[in-house]
Amino acid sequence: MSEPSRTATTSRRRPVQPGKLPGRQDWSTWPNYQAAAAGFRGYWYPVCYSSAITGKPTQVTMLGEKIVLIRDNGTVYGLKDRCPHRGVPLSEGNQQFPGTISCPYHGWTFDLGTGELKAAITDGPESPICGKVTQPTYPVAERLGMVWVFIGDGEEAPPIDQHLPEELAGNAAVAGSRIQRRVGNWRFACENGYDEGHAKYLHRTSLWRLFKAMPVWNKTRIERRGRWIYRVQLEQHWEADFPGLGPWSNQAWFKLKPPKKVGNIGNTGSHREVDPVIAEQNFPGFASVAMPGILRIVYPTFIHYEFYAPIDAENHLYVGIMVEFRRGLKVLPFYLKYLGFVRWLFHGQFSAQDKWMVEVTDAPPERLYRPDDSLLQWRKLAEEISEERAARLRESGVG
Amino acid sequence: MSEPSRTATTSRRRPVQPGKLPGRQDWSTWPNYQAAAAGFRGYWYPVCYSSAITGKPTQVTMLGEKIVLIRDNGTVYGLKDRCPHRGVPLSEGNQQFPGTISCPYHGWTFDLGTGELKAAITDGPESPICGKVTQPTYPVAERLGMVWVFIGDGEEAPPIDQHLPEELAGNAAVAGSRIQRRVGNWRFACENGYDEGHAKYLHRTSLWRLFKAMPVWNKTRIERRGRWIYRVQLEQHWEADFPGLGPWSNQAWFKLKPPKKVGNIGNTGSHREVDPVIAEQNFPGFASVAMPGILRIVYPTFIHYEFYAPIDAENHLYVGIMVEFRRGLKVLPFYLKYLGFVRWLFHGQFSAQDKWMVEVTDAPPERLYRPDDSLLQWRKLAEEISEERAARLRESGVG
Amino acid sequence: MSEPSRTATTSRRRPVQPGKLPGRQDWSTWPNYQAAAAGFRGYWYPVCYSSAITGKPTQVTMLGEKIVLIRDNGTVYGLKDRCPHRGVPLSEGNQQFPGTISCPYHGWTFDLGTGELKAAITDGPESPICGKVTQPTYPVAERLGMVWVFIGDGEEAPPIDQHLPEELAGNAAVAGSRIQRRVGNWRFACENGYDEGHAKYLHRTSLWRLFKAMPVWNKTRIERRGRWIYRVQLEQHWEADFPGLGPWSNQAWFKLKPPKKVGNIGNTGSHREVDPVIAEQNFPGFASVAMPGILRIVYPTFIHYEFYAPIDAENHLYVGIMVEFRRGLKVLPFYLKYLGFVRWLFHGQFSAQDKWMVEVTDAPPERLYRPDDSLLQWRKLAEEISEERAARLRESGVG
Repeated sequence: MSEPSRTATTSRRRPVQPGKLPGRQDWSTWPNYQAAAAGFRGYWYPVCYSSAITGKPTQVTMLGEKIVLIRDNGTVYGLKDRCPHRGVPLSEGNQQFPGTISCPYHGWTFDLGTGELKAAITDGPESPICGKVTQPTYPVAERLGMVWVFIGDGEEAPPIDQHLPEELAGNAAVAGSRIQRRVGNWRFACENGYDEGHAKYLHRTSLWRLFKAMPVWNKTRIERRGRWIYRVQLEQHWEADFPGLGPWSNQAWFKLKPPKKVGNIGNTGSHREVDPVIAEQNFPGFASVAMPGILRIVYPTFIHYEFYAPIDAENHLYVGIMVEFRRGLKVLPFYLKYLGFVRWLFHGQFSAQDKWMVEVTDAPPERLYRPDDSLLQWRKLAEEISEERAARLRESGVG
Repeated sequence: MSEPSRTATTSRRRPVQPGKLPGRQDWSTWPNYQAAAAGFRGYWYPVCYSSAITGKPTQVTMLGEKIVLIRDNGTVYGLKDRCPHRGVPLSEGNQQFPGTISCPYHGWTFDLGTGELKAAITDGPESPICGKVTQPTYPVAERLGMVWVFIGDGEEAPPIDQHLPEELAGNAAVAGSRIQRRVGNWRFACENGYDEGHAKYLHRTSLWRLFKAMPVWNKTRIERRGRWIYRVQLEQHWEADFPGLGPWSNQAWFKLKPPKKVGNIGNTGSHREVDPVIAEQNFPGFASVAMPGILRIVYPTFIHYEFYAPIDAENHLYVGIMVEFRRGLKVLPFYLKYLGFVRWLFHGQFSAQDKWMVEVTDAPPERLYRPDDSLLQWRKLAEEISEERAARLRESGVG
Repeated sequence: MSEPSRTATTSRRRPVQPGKLPGRQDWSTWPNYQAAAAGFRGYWYPVCYSSAITGKPTQVTMLGEKIVLIRDNGTVYGLKDRCPHRGVPLSEGNQQFPGTISCPYHGWTFDLGTGELKAAITDGPESPICGKVTQPTYPVAERLGMVWVFIGDGEEAPPIDQHLPEELAGNAAVAGSRIQRRVGNWRFACENGYDEGHAKYLHRTSLWRLFKAMPVWNKTRIERRGRWIYRVQLEQHWEADFPGLGPWSNQAWFKLKPPKKVGNIGNTGSHREVDPVIAEQNFPGFASVAMPGILRIVYPTFIHYEFYAPIDAENHLYVGIMVEFRRGLKVLPFYLKYLGFVRWLFHGQFSAQDKWMVEVTDAPPERLYRPDDSLLQWRKLAEEISEERAARLRESGVG
C-alpha cells in the first residue's frame, strides 16, 4: 500500500476487560441518598422568580410534581396541577371568581387557599360534587425575590426561615441571583458544588480566577456544625512536581502571588477585610453544605449560595445567589458590581464549567480518591438527616 | 433581608397526599374499552382524502397497522405495508406490471386484488416461491371524497354504508370536510366530542358562538336508538348563582337572547326552519355517538360529523365533515358558506379548542360528575357492542 | 351523496391475519449471529480517517463502546472514554503532560500506552491512588488512511494485516474511500452488500449502471475459500417473461449489449483486460464476504471493498474503499477517475440506494427465496468462525 505502515501498538497494552468497572458499583451505602434521585421530600425549594408569578396560572415542576402557581390579591398559591376530573392541568385554566382557579375544560373551580372544589360550573349551583373533592395544595413562600414551595409527605411545613441559611434571617441583605434549568441529576450538581477536588483544576481557566492562582492540591478536614458540614483547609499547595511527569502549577506572571498562610475564606487567599456580619458567623471553612442541597461559599465581603432544586431525576434548577450584608444606599455599588461582572464571570462562565461537568458525570460506578472525603461526608450527612426525619414522621404518624 | 417578608400560607392547607388520586383508578369496568387504546377492530375507518391516493404507493397507519394504498385503473387497493421477504415497506416501491405492486428491494410483485405473490423478478419466471406467499389485503372503499379502510380480524367486511350514519345513504348530500392528524388517544377525542359538560364552558369563547350564548348548565338524559345513543336535553339553564362565589353566565349584550324553551337541535337554541331530510330523521337529541367513534351534531340546516380514527394509542385522525342535504345548483351557496366561514370558525378555531383539551387530558384516574353520564353511557355502548361482535366472531369461528 | 359510489373491493380478498408473519420468525438457527446485534468481538474495525485524530482527544463509538482517540508524537492511542473516578469522558479533557491524557474534572492523568493512572493532579504528587487504577486501552493501527481499533475480550490482538483482505498486504495500492455514519443494523448492511438478489433490481436505475444493463436473474453457487465465501455465477439471464404478467428486462437502446458468456468479474459482464494483481488472486466470483463484515467486489481493473463497522445495534459505519494496484505516476489517473465520477456515482448515488434499503429493512421475521442462499451461507460462515473463536478463547482461558 502507498501509506506508510504503522506498527499496531498492541502488545504492551492492558486488554479491555468488559464487565465490572473499578471502585464503588452503587450508592447502597447511603440508601436514602440512593433513593433520592428526584430529591428529598420535606424541604422548601426555590422554583422561580417572584415576578414570574402573576394572576395567570403558571406550571412549575419540582421533585417530579407538577404544581400550578397563581398570585391572587398579592399572595402566591400552589396546587397540584392536575384537575382530578379528567387530568387536565389547572395551569391551562384561569380565574372565574376571586380566590379560586377554574379548570379550562368544564369549569371545575377550586379555592386557592384550601383546595376545596367550590363549583363545577357546568353542573350548576347545586352540583352534588361540591365539597366532596379537595385538591392538594402546597405551602408557598416568597424570599430573596423568589417563590419557594414546600414539598413534603403530609407533615406540617416548618417556617421557611428555618430552612434558609441562618445568617439570612435577621440581617439586612442585598442579593443578585441567577436561576437556570440544567440537565443532570441534582446530586451531581450538589456534589460538584461541595467537591474539594475539582475547583482548583476545572476552574483554573475561568475568567473569574484570571488574576488569582488556584492551589494545585489541598489537605482538608470536614467539620460538622449543626445542619452544615464545612471543609476546613489544613494545607494549601500552590505548586507540585509529579513523579515521572514533571512540575505543575496554576501560577502565572499576571496572577497575584498566592498567600503565605492557609486561608479559610475563599479559595485563593483573602486580601480584604472581612464583612462584620460574615465575621460574626465564625464559619470554620469557606465551603459548607446543608440539606437538601444548599451550598454556601464564603468570601470576605459576600457569600455565594447555590441551591440545587430537583426538577426530576434528570434535571435540576440551579439557583445561584450572591449576597452582601448591606442596606440603604450601600446597595447601589453592590448592584453595579453584580451586574457589571459577577453575574457574567461567576454566575456565568465559571458556573457554566460546573454545568458542563454535571451534564457529563456518570456515577456510580465511581472510584473515589482522597479529596472525595467531602462527597462521602455530604452523603453521610444526607443519610443521617433523612433517618432523623423518617423517625420523626413515624412518631407523628404522618406520611 | 430587603425584600418584604411574606408569611408562608402553610397551616390551613390540606397536605399533599402522594399516591392514590380521587375517583376511578382505571377503566376496568369496561374491559373492551380499556383494551382499545389503539382502536376497535371490525370497522371501516377514514384514512385520507381520495385525491391523495394515485398510482404512486402511499403509506397510511390505522390502528397501529401500516397499510400501503395505491390506485390502479381507478380503484384504490390496500395491502399490509411490509414485504414478507425482508420487511421493506411496499410503499417504497412502485408498479412494474398493471394490477400489481413491486417491492423496491428485490422486485417481489404482488397482485393488488388478492395479495398473491405473482413474481419474484430477481428469481426469474420459474421462481418456486410464486403462489406460496400471499400478502394480507384490506377492504377499501371511497365515500365523501375520502378513502376508507376496513380493519378487522379476518371476518368478512360489511358494506361500508352499514357503518356510515344512515341518513347519508340514499340522500343527496354535499360535504365540506377537514382531516387533521392530532396528538392524543382517540378515546379522549371521542369522549370530548360527546361530552355533555365541556361545550358550554370550553367553547363559550369561540368565534363560532360569538353571537349565540351558551347555557351554563343542562339536565340531560341519554337515550339509545339502534347503534346510536342520543343526549336529550331536559333543562337548559342560561344563568346561575354559585354559593359563596356569585353569579355566572355566558350571556352578553351583543349575543342573541337564549330561547325560551328547551331545544334539541343545536346547543344554543334553534331559530331556523329544519331541513326536511333532517326533520325526517326525528333525532331525539342534537348530539349522538356510535361505534367506533362517530359523533353526529345536528343543526337545523346541516349535520356536523366527527370521526375519530385511531392511528395508534397516542395519535388519531380527526375527520370533521359538515353535510347539507342539497343537490344541483343549491350546492353553490353551501360551498360559499363552508369555505367562507364554517371551515375557519367551526372546523378551525372551535375544533382547535377540542384538540387542545384532547392533548392535555390524562385519564384514568378520573373523578366523574353528573354530566359525565354521557361518557359512562358511551363506554357502556362500546362495551355492549364489542361483546356482541366477540360473540359473533366466536360463533363464526373467525379471529 | 354527490360522489360516485364505488363498490368496496371486499369479498375476494384474503383477510388480514394478525399475529405470525410468514417464514422464519427469528435467527435462532445462527445463535452467535443473532446475538451480534452490536457486532462481533475479536476484530479490527475502521473508525475514522487518520487525519481526524490529532492531539485533541476525540470520541468514537464502536460495538457500543466509547473510545477516546488521541495522537501523541505521531502515534494514535485509544482508551476507554470514561474516567473511572466519576464517569466523565476523557475526550472532554486534554494533555497536561506528554504521553498522557488528563480528565477535565479533577486532573486524573493516564498513560496513553499502558492506561496506568500516573497522577491525580488535585491530590498532589503523593496521591495514594496512583498505580492502583489502570484504564483499559485499545490496540490501534493505521491503514489505508484510516484509524483501526481492535475490539476483543481480553485476547491478544492479531496483526491487523491478518484481518484485511490478503491482496492488500504486499501489493502497492492506491485508494479512494468514503466513510459514512448510517442508520440501521450492520448485519442488514452486510447482508445487503453480499445479497445475490437485490443488485440487479434495486440498482438498475443507478447512474453508475446507466450504460450497462443488469441481468434480470442469475443462478449462482456459493463457494468457500479460506475465510471468504464467493458467489459464483452459473447462469445470467438478461430478459425474462413472467407468467401472467409479461416480459421484463433491464436492457435499453442506449445500454451496451450484455455479454454472451457468464462472467465472474463485475455484475454486468467484463469488457476490459484484467489487472495482473487481480488476475493473480484467481477469485472464483466477483462478490465475496468475510468476517466481521467485509465485502469485496472485484472488477477487471479495481476492487471495491465495503466494511460495515457496527457503532451500536442501530447504527453502523459504512466504509467504502476503491482500490487499484498502481504505484508512482499511475496513481494520478486513478484519482482523476475516482474524484471525477466513481466517488459521486458509485460511492455516492449507487451506494445511497443500499443505504435506503438498510434503513427500511426489518427482519426477522423474513421469508427467504432462492437467491437468499447467499445470506444463508454468510450467516453460516459467521456462525462457524464465531464458534472457532469461542473455542480458541476457552482453550486459552481468556474472555
